[in-house]
Amino acid sequence: MPWRLFGLATVTAFALNATQAVADPLSSWNDGPAKRSIIEFVAKVSAPESPDYVPPAERIAVFDNDGTLWAEQPLYFQLLFAFDRVRALASDHPEWKDTQPFKAVLEGDLDTALSGGDQALLEIILATHAGMTTAEFSAIASDWLKTAKHPVSGRLFTEMVYQPMLDLLEYLRTNGFKTYITSGGGIELIRVFAEDVYGIPPEQVIGSSLKVQYEYRDGNPALVRLPEIDFVDDKAGKPVAINHHIGRRPIAAFGNSDGDLQMLQWTCAGDGARLCVYVHHTDAEREWAYDRNSHIGRLDVGLDQALQNDWTVVDMASDWKYVFPIFDMNHENR
Amino acid sequence: MPWRLFGLATVTAFALNATQAVADPLSSWNDGPAKRSIIEFVAKVSAPESPDYVPPAERIAVFDNDGTLWAEQPLYFQLLFAFDRVRALASDHPEWKDTQPFKAVLEGDLDTALSGGDQALLEIILATHAGMTTAEFSAIASDWLKTAKHPVSGRLFTEMVYQPMLDLLEYLRTNGFKTYITSGGGIELIRVFAEDVYGIPPEQVIGSSLKVQYEYRDGNPALVRLPEIDFVDDKAGKPVAINHHIGRRPIAAFGNSDGDLQMLQWTCAGDGARLCVYVHHTDAEREWAYDRNSHIGRLDVGLDQALQNDWTVVDMASDWKYVFPIFDMNHENR
Repeated sequence: MPWRLFGLATVTAFALNATQAVADPLSSWNDGPAKRSIIEFVAKVSAPESPDYVPPAERIAVFDNDGTLWAEQPLYFQLLFAFDRVRALASDHPEWKDTQPFKAVLEGDLDTALSGGDQALLEIILATHAGMTTAEFSAIASDWLKTAKHPVSGRLFTEMVYQPMLDLLEYLRTNGFKTYITSGGGIELIRVFAEDVYGIPPEQVIGSSLKVQYEYRDGNPALVRLPEIDFVDDKAGKPVAINHHIGRRPIAAFGNSDGDLQMLQWTCAGDGARLCVYVHHTDAEREWAYDRNSHIGRLDVGLDQALQNDWTVVDMASDWKYVFPIFDMNHENR
Repeated sequence: MPWRLFGLATVTAFALNATQAVADPLSSWNDGPAKRSIIEFVAKVSAPESPDYVPPAERIAVFDNDGTLWAEQPLYFQLLFAFDRVRALASDHPEWKDTQPFKAVLEGDLDTALSGGDQALLEIILATHAGMTTAEFSAIASDWLKTAKHPVSGRLFTEMVYQPMLDLLEYLRTNGFKTYITSGGGIELIRVFAEDVYGIPPEQVIGSSLKVQYEYRDGNPALVRLPEIDFVDDKAGKPVAINHHIGRRPIAAFGNSDGDLQMLQWTCAGDGARLCVYVHHTDAEREWAYDRNSHIGRLDVGLDQALQNDWTVVDMASDWKYVFPIFDMNHENR
């Protein structure tokens, strides 16, 4: 489809969208069991006369980020950021030309870089994410997000977010929910764009973190990022971090991988009405299709537990009218 | 003064209070430089036409708890809680009868118990605050707060809060501020009463913490408190924790001791209008008077920096019309 024509189709689709929005706050979702389960849950916890009514202060909803709010293929976007930082910092580190995993990154040989496993990735993260103040890091991440392009779509990473999830966040907030991110990704990276892109302020972002030290730099107090892991907000770490930051058990949780399983278990084991949702990547045309055997965002044990426990499983291919806000990976589908 | 007469005087004082409240949201504060500096700051950051205007999302105010929002004499209330727990758990720990510092606590010999210093206190905290789930700990702390009495006043600990600070919290929130606690005390203990007493929800409480582990107990997911320090939210830890939980630099900070100094430095080193306030315990009649030489809540370096930097120093004796909400330590003053 020529771009001009695609543009026209997009405008028409958006106009229709806007017209329907009053009637249907989840107009980017197709009617189906996933959409119905979400709407039924929200209705029963927010209607004052409902036996399942929950006061607004306790309407806490938590969202994984990678693969749940934005894409995570072909690699977690934060790793792509780290690789770009290795290239940007290479001139200060001549030794990287001969040291793995940096050598492989500089040579564009990602298979070799990734073959070092978690230890190699940790080395790359610590070498690129520490040593600066929190303010400096935010500026670096912000610049990257404004310019770096996704290797497959060629779009900004902040355009690789899911329109149905943006609508869902807004729908929940309209119904008195407080929406949180709880990500295995870095808390400070997500905070850079979460308010603009998701409407989620920094104090509602939970994530993995490095240790930070208060010190004076050039006569002013500064918070300096140390090359040392503070907390990994993944798997069993997620309910722990939720308790630490929020101090309440959520009543709704949204994830897409086994890394979110404990967060969903913890959420849905609470009393009263609960909603646990897995986003299932089933759409090879408009996004990616992967689950039990994926090296990224593996959904295996979690999928079994979802089926056993009657959690909501979103089938991206059939439940989502659109995937991305401005474009779909395969434009013909729009 | 006989109690009946005291009661009458109280009712009259409260009635006057209620009448004045519309005109003066800080009616529990005497007019003076401290009150004026607070009101001027709030006016200039919240008036849209002001050159110092700050959008509501960035109006973050952080408060120390011990000695700033509630009293901390003759000992931090959390230590009194821990001592009560030692007594409650003694029958399960026959070895404590012969082991310091537990032996001294059980014998009511607090001088000896405290003579072991931080290490002894840490042992007592870990022995009394860990091993149960977070829900069990909250229930224990809640029961204690409902029944335990302050050793000097004979009042509930939740009555040992400062009326002028309660009014200040409310005044700030009315003007679009988000109010946070950032305490050296335990985050989970403060969360038990902060919402009811201070109007501060659990997600806006920051404090020291033990490590917590997600596990299954009796077939259900549980968060279990481990006998291991996770984070000490004191001194240089305070700005670090503020950044971790909030992700924004506060524009106003309130403390009473050298333990709050880095939090005040960090807050007031930011751009634009800032308010840093030390509550100075000067009132031996109605509360306690202590600063540079106190073993609890020492205010020494902080007081010098406050004077140097023109921070606001609240003189409790002259700036506060009342100290506690229902009573003053010395009833004659009311």
